[in-house]
Amino acid sequence: MATPTGANRPSPEHIFNVLNAHQQSAALKAGIELDVFTAIGEGTDTSAALAAKTGAAERGVRILCDYLTIHEFLTKEGGRYALTPESAVFLDRRSPACLAPMAGFLGSETVRRNFAALTDAVRKGGTAGDHGDNTKSNDAYWVNFARSMAPLTKPSAEFIARLARADEGTPCKVLDIAAGHGMYGITIAKHNPNAQIVAADWPPVLEVAQENAKRFGVAERYSTRPGSAFETDLGTDYDFVLLTNIFHHFDMPTCEKLMRRVHAALKPGGKALTLEFVPNEDRVTPPTTAAFSLVMLAGTDAGDAYTFSQYERMFANAGFLKTSLHPVPEMPQQVLVSER
Amino acid sequence: MATPTGANRPSPEHIFNVLNAHQQSAALKAGIELDVFTAIGEGTDTSAALAAKTGAAERGVRILCDYLTIHEFLTKEGGRYALTPESAVFLDRRSPACLAPMAGFLGSETVRRNFAALTDAVRKGGTAGDHGDNTKSNDAYWVNFARSMAPLTKPSAEFIARLARADEGTPCKVLDIAAGHGMYGITIAKHNPNAQIVAADWPPVLEVAQENAKRFGVAERYSTRPGSAFETDLGTDYDFVLLTNIFHHFDMPTCEKLMRRVHAALKPGGKALTLEFVPNEDRVTPPTTAAFSLVMLAGTDAGDAYTFSQYERMFANAGFLKTSLHPVPEMPQQVLVSER
Repeated sequence: MATPTGANRPSPEHIFNVLNAHQQSAALKAGIELDVFTAIGEGTDTSAALAAKTGAAERGVRILCDYLTIHEFLTKEGGRYALTPESAVFLDRRSPACLAPMAGFLGSETVRRNFAALTDAVRKGGTAGDHGDNTKSNDAYWVNFARSMAPLTKPSAEFIARLARADEGTPCKVLDIAAGHGMYGITIAKHNPNAQIVAADWPPVLEVAQENAKRFGVAERYSTRPGSAFETDLGTDYDFVLLTNIFHHFDMPTCEKLMRRVHAALKPGGKALTLEFVPNEDRVTPPTTAAFSLVMLAGTDAGDAYTFSQYERMFANAGFLKTSLHPVPEMPQQVLVSER
Repeated sequence: MATPTGANRPSPEHIFNVLNAHQQSAALKAGIELDVFTAIGEGTDTSAALAAKTGAAERGVRILCDYLTIHEFLTKEGGRYALTPESAVFLDRRSPACLAPMAGFLGSETVRRNFAALTDAVRKGGTAGDHGDNTKSNDAYWVNFARSMAPLTKPSAEFIARLARADEGTPCKVLDIAAGHGMYGITIAKHNPNAQIVAADWPPVLEVAQENAKRFGVAERYSTRPGSAFETDLGTDYDFVLLTNIFHHFDMPTCEKLMRRVHAALKPGGKALTLEFVPNEDRVTPPTTAAFSLVMLAGTDAGDAYTFSQYERMFANAGFLKTSLHPVPEMPQQVLVSER
């Protein structure tokens, strides 16, 4: 849908559909909130039965499920709905790969308000909302993020664990900055029984990371450094520092400032691993990657999806010798590996 | 975008993109509100120049225009933006076919609020908003509709004028119920110099229709019947009654009630011409047509996109002998022709 194709070029119907595209977000979110995907996966397959199961009105369920069928999240045959193979994997809560919690963050009131004021954000060059400075704490928002977005991290967390050679089992010390749900560090700890993870984030967010560390059986190798990544003592002698989805929130001087602290925390020969949306120099490809800039315009004072040359320059200014780019397979993000 | 294709089936990225699809609506709306399309059409083609021209921040304009490029509303080459052929026709305000005003209605606060509460609407089986009963007046909303949506009507208004054989110039009396901007009746009057148009709608909405009648030079053959289409005296002996985008707001008994009044207003042999979103019996095809039901769930107490068999039954109950279905070329709507 977000990938432009020849057939999707503007036309009256295309313009009408894009102005109405917010309906798709609302419908998928409603389907997730009412958990119709799990219900259908369990065999509740007519609008009458789904209404009884979810406590919603039959008319509401029928119109919603028809709409989700039009957008290929369901199929419909003789009045009976079924999951598509992909919905069974990613939207049925019984599936280990379920991404449904993501709707709680991507469809949150804050995000909705920020985009409702997008014209003002373009005028101003930064969010029209109240929380544009992400060097400051914003606990409710980031706890919601930590609770909602963990399932989406799996492919990139596994990719980062491979880049950190976690399966070799070499003893190592890993700092996870802005750890959130903690899944990047935890994934390394799962693969490497000799890895010690230190998570830095705001205190209420670290509670979520610690819960996850317990759930995945790595709590005894998991410690925390609460507070601002710009101010708190991060410790030293790390083999790896993880910087996942953090730089895009800041302007370039702030990114450099953080990366200088990372440089100081790494041992010689250590590596910073940065997960980011890194568009090509044209800033319009690849589509989902490049489109992320708009999220930062809507929600932050000065964040952006920086290009590789911008990151190279910032990281060199912070003292790093060399940075290389590694696209995460089948995901719109990239990992930057920077050597101290 | 709304047309499902094999390449668009759910995947982590697809689910992520659909949860974020509201960003596309917000970005297109912002582009229209800041009128970047007209500015680019006039040759203002860098983010710096566009910022100067629109009074917006360069960072804001650059990120917005990159996003609009990703979604094929613009092209970008060496830092210079250009309109796509379709944007030049449909989004540049200097173009006679410009659809830009549509954003004022489709992206209105009311629509946004209704969709923000979609989960509640599914539970309830009708809008979570305050104006779900469209037999009642809602002047600000419908005046906004009348001022915003006229440009989109052209293909269907021309199609209806052909169905009414307007070019033959036969003297006729046409009643346009819920006239709104009035463009359906006005288009008949433009083609047929012997057509008398009577427009029915709420008084403030009729002011917009009368402005348009003047603008298109048919004011002397244009009169009005203000008030509720369910209560006001609609007159009699009409050759044609136009019912454009009205039935979908009501439940079936209310549709029948209105159609009985239409039957009484037509002369023997007269025709009711209904413009509607009429999905196939499966209710999930054609996609844009069938998707319209969700708009009625979000915004009305009991409206829907009814199928042809539902309309046939309602119109037969209201006394019509025969109803036939005529798809509007290249548009997601259909015209029902019902003979008294």
